[in-house]
Amino acid sequence: MQLFDSKMAPNPRRVRIFLAEKGIEVPTVQVDIAAAENRTAEFQAKNPMVNVPVLELDDGRYLSETVAICRYFEGLHPDPPLMGVDAVDAGFVEMWNRRMEFELMNNITGPFRHTHAFFKGRIPQVPEWGEVCREAAVERLAWLDGELADREFIAGDRFTIADITALCAIDFGAVSQIKIEPDQNHLQRWYEKVSTRSSSGA
Amino acid sequence: MQLFDSKMAPNPRRVRIFLAEKGIEVPTVQVDIAAAENRTAEFQAKNPMVNVPVLELDDGRYLSETVAICRYFEGLHPDPPLMGVDAVDAGFVEMWNRRMEFELMNNITGPFRHTHAFFKGRIPQVPEWGEVCREAAVERLAWLDGELADREFIAGDRFTIADITALCAIDFGAVSQIKIEPDQNHLQRWYEKVSTRSSSGA
Repeated sequence: MQLFDSKMAPNPRRVRIFLAEKGIEVPTVQVDIAAAENRTAEFQAKNPMVNVPVLELDDGRYLSETVAICRYFEGLHPDPPLMGVDAVDAGFVEMWNRRMEFELMNNITGPFRHTHAFFKGRIPQVPEWGEVCREAAVERLAWLDGELADREFIAGDRFTIADITALCAIDFGAVSQIKIEPDQNHLQRWYEKVSTRSSSGA
Repeated sequence: MQLFDSKMAPNPRRVRIFLAEKGIEVPTVQVDIAAAENRTAEFQAKNPMVNVPVLELDDGRYLSETVAICRYFEGLHPDPPLMGVDAVDAGFVEMWNRRMEFELMNNITGPFRHTHAFFKGRIPQVPEWGEVCREAAVERLAWLDGELADREFIAGDRFTIADITALCAIDFGAVSQIKIEPDQNHLQRWYEKVSTRSSSGA
């Protein structure tokens, strides 16, 4: 088993933190996305969506999509639970993780994907769409600050995959000057807590 | 328990089909999204993301996000399994469902969201982005046709949530004139099979 990883991108970091929280070690292979190694025919055979991370299983199959890789490890190593402890909790963790993906991660990565030189010629860039994403990202951070007023973590009183997604999204915001505002106290408090866990360095 | 539903939108249909496949009956409340009932303060208290479907639980909590609702029911009623039968299968089903969401559903709904009068004034529309989504949707249908050459269903030899997502995405393509091409024989064969299951009418 090996994990095709990239230290540059936010999604592989989600898997690395997930594994660190569970104490699982998986050999990694760095994919040089700056050199477009993820767009070669060789990599496309592993994942036609050309995204990292990708997990190569011992039977030779390739599992891609960040959360699918996490789900696989959650099933194999349920402790500590990061994706819910029963049916209803799994539902709410999934809801919060998806909100962090669609409302935070996608909006925060939008300006980078659609206005930064890195993606020029790699994807069809639509700068106006990048700006819509930026405004939405700023709005969603304010909303999330309010949500965190009465609980410790994103999905409740336990650290979950939703916290990992939010942390990786917010840290990636730095490249687009999207950040937690000084008056967003609940979000600041949460950020300090999750970013000082040892897993965050993974 | 009740499900806030809309017959107009593709995502609530995913939950209805999921429930029909499992033989679960849940009372539904129609949300009139044409009249923007999902944007009222009352509905935002249920789901600040203003999306349907939303499931109201017996304890008064609201669970939103289509796949989170499905995950909850999968946990309560594991048979027939629609989200995988073990850790590795759950990983691959999640991978395929996410591919169907991000590559198919999002690209197919993009032109509608960004160029159709329905969304004017509801979301910031970026027609150029809608067109990028349309081109990607057409390309992804061709890719999916190739993927289906050697297996019966999207995620393998068993009907799963990934088939439900793909079916709802493709049917929604009609409003934007995005459809399976006559020469996409594998996709046609798959479509005929899944769209004639009794659940598809849910």
